[in-house]
Amino acid sequence: MGRVTTRRRVLRIVDGVTAEPVDTLAAEEPLEIRVNGKPLVVTMRTPGDDFDLAAGFLVSEGVVRAAGEITGIRYCLGATADGVNTYNVVDVVLAGWVPPPDPSLERNFYTTSSCGLCGKASLDAVRTIASWSVRDDPVRLDPAVITALPGTLRVAQRVFDRTGGLHAAGLFSADGRLLCLREDVGRHNAVDKAVGWALRDGRLPLRDTILMVSGRASFELVQKAVMAGVPALAAVSAPSSLAADLAADAGLTLIGFLRGASMNVYAGAHRVLGLPS
Amino acid sequence: MGRVTTRRRVLRIVDGVTAEPVDTLAAEEPLEIRVNGKPLVVTMRTPGDDFDLAAGFLVSEGVVRAAGEITGIRYCLGATADGVNTYNVVDVVLAGWVPPPDPSLERNFYTTSSCGLCGKASLDAVRTIASWSVRDDPVRLDPAVITALPGTLRVAQRVFDRTGGLHAAGLFSADGRLLCLREDVGRHNAVDKAVGWALRDGRLPLRDTILMVSGRASFELVQKAVMAGVPALAAVSAPSSLAADLAADAGLTLIGFLRGASMNVYAGAHRVLGLPS
Repeated sequence: MGRVTTRRRVLRIVDGVTAEPVDTLAAEEPLEIRVNGKPLVVTMRTPGDDFDLAAGFLVSEGVVRAAGEITGIRYCLGATADGVNTYNVVDVVLAGWVPPPDPSLERNFYTTSSCGLCGKASLDAVRTIASWSVRDDPVRLDPAVITALPGTLRVAQRVFDRTGGLHAAGLFSADGRLLCLREDVGRHNAVDKAVGWALRDGRLPLRDTILMVSGRASFELVQKAVMAGVPALAAVSAPSSLAADLAADAGLTLIGFLRGASMNVYAGAHRVLGLPS
Repeated sequence: MGRVTTRRRVLRIVDGVTAEPVDTLAAEEPLEIRVNGKPLVVTMRTPGDDFDLAAGFLVSEGVVRAAGEITGIRYCLGATADGVNTYNVVDVVLAGWVPPPDPSLERNFYTTSSCGLCGKASLDAVRTIASWSVRDDPVRLDPAVITALPGTLRVAQRVFDRTGGLHAAGLFSADGRLLCLREDVGRHNAVDKAVGWALRDGRLPLRDTILMVSGRASFELVQKAVMAGVPALAAVSAPSSLAADLAADAGLTLIGFLRGASMNVYAGAHRVLGLPS
């Protein structure tokens, strides 16, 4: 996986003085995900952990929820006109009893987030599709553990330091141990990669865990957390209004602006220890 | 447009001390864009400038390139089951001679970025679809003008200061005047809104301009700049590898890490004054 970053000569200007250092850029390439040989979606992603990404995407979409529902994942050969394997096409084979997704369903053309449905409908859809409820997860979280997450994530995130261009998603145990770190130019992909890892490792639903993301918390990320059974989502930056709404609706603990010793809890505050419940 | 932000009571924890202030969140709601009454795409966006967003999206997709190709944009009435106008569905009516987009074409299901095609194919597609070339734009840019852009953008960006959750896209003249600022929870939407404003104002192709974005520069944003005829794209943060590749390929000037008095030029450095050409 030498393609997570690429190196490129760049013209650097500082106070009018120029230099031409070699810069490290986060790689971005399209990945076509096929299911049972049929093209489903193309996403722009950073190469690496592609099987996790494909598996996690299918969890987010409610297609699979256990490792055994996928019988195989492989790179397609000869995907380009000249027969060269670009490692940019992945085929997921579902177990015979798993209904494949219907690409024609309500989602023609494409959207720029994981929500291909209308607002209220989406909120309903998540509640309907999710195979488990995060609302009843009894996990409790120590504020000291929560405030330590960004530091742990940053230390583990080697690529970010080099490129400044990658989002990170870290899955943590409730006592703050990093279980899995995944990076991508797209934050939704980073989360899908982490969720896909968990699926393939037989860990769904992800009870007693915290998902930490390096950027903002959108509706889409809350939706992915709920679909994976994660009871708590923490973000370095701000959540959107719909992210907070969905979190409250689904019983997910949503933490934003997690920086230094401070945080904002937007939903599910009862899970944070030492607070009035 | 009172829905750009929403207010919400939040539990704030600083060093174990709690308070419950009211926080301002960036609004995020789905927008369904229809063309000639037919649903085309749903995007999660911050309400506001929805007509610009719809128009700009169609520019990015190569559907329209001049204001006269759109005869009307309106909110659909009775879009929900109970007949309430949510202002979340917009219909764009194209002039009779403009071929509507074909939703079935190569883009089933959805993607998480504006690229619904495979890598090399996408690069080719942009060159083919774009109605103008940015390569030959003779504009030259003063480094002092470029380094002043982030400050101008930030001063003009009132919502960001309140929520910390919005991306900004600013269109600037080559001498650094802000022509148009648009904000959104999605950076691609912020750019589409700015491009849509320009289309509806009869300004395409956007020669002699610089597009400045508050975050990172992805392949998708470079593609949108090229489709709108913008010769230079500047970003506060890092570009991806494919963004730099496409910029070099299309003759776009791509600047990243634009902070303080410094910047990195990844492509099209001949437009930056005072540098070896």
